[in-house]
Amino acid sequence: MTTLAWLEQLKWNDDGLIPVITQDARSNLILMFAWMNRDALLETVKKGQAVYYSRSRKRLWHKGEESGFTQKVTDIFVDCDSDALVMQVEQAGGIACHTGRESCFYRQLKGSASDGSWEITAPVLVDPLDIYKKSGTPD
Amino acid sequence: MTTLAWLEQLKWNDDGLIPVITQDARSNLILMFAWMNRDALLETVKKGQAVYYSRSRKRLWHKGEESGFTQKVTDIFVDCDSDALVMQVEQAGGIACHTGRESCFYRQLKGSASDGSWEITAPVLVDPLDIYKKSGTPD
Repeated sequence: MTTLAWLEQLKWNDDGLIPVITQDARSNLILMFAWMNRDALLETVKKGQAVYYSRSRKRLWHKGEESGFTQKVTDIFVDCDSDALVMQVEQAGGIACHTGRESCFYRQLKGSASDGSWEITAPVLVDPLDIYKKSGTPD
Repeated sequence: MTTLAWLEQLKWNDDGLIPVITQDARSNLILMFAWMNRDALLETVKKGQAVYYSRSRKRLWHKGEESGFTQKVTDIFVDCDSDALVMQVEQAGGIACHTGRESCFYRQLKGSASDGSWEITAPVLVDPLDIYKKSGTPD
């Protein structure tokens, strides 16, 4: 069990996780939102590359392990409540989303409360079939 | 109970909440991280101002209701998993954090994995005692 002070100063939720907002270090574009446990954050800091905890796969997830689209970490910030992180990265390939887009946040709410809809506002830059042709496993 | 399609297309967690990343519409600075339930998001869209769900107070929280530092919503985006939102806002007063800072993410990780520490890297712009002198309740 890790007992590093800076890790324990964070407020981990009941599942031992903290939310992480990943942001392009140059443009400040928000690339993705994911979770880390203590091991993932420790690995991230040690490697200098983003390692998340996959809640669906229930294991550490080295971002880009299949796609090659790794994230080099430049800075990590914590909020006033110590329960959320912002991580600034240099995104390899310029693509963070498994759909082949730069950012996972590519759908925008259009219309009003009564007739709203989510509309795609960002292009696919690389065909996901080309990204994952080796493994078939998106990351 | 609301049954608007765009609301139901979101993946609400077991507590009926979705995480929201709030970003300055001009600078792309990430201002804060909070949660919304369906009513909070619906109120946000109707008002054009940020309304969150406070997990500690267990009620809707109209951001700026005490401090005056409201957030005018310009755009809302959803991610590929439909389980996180990015909300771009114009921040009244230029202060989103109850500590009197522009952003809640004002502490940065310095050092290495073995000797890391969280260091304050952004100034207090307004004394919180002045922000909340009327009510004493930070928001």
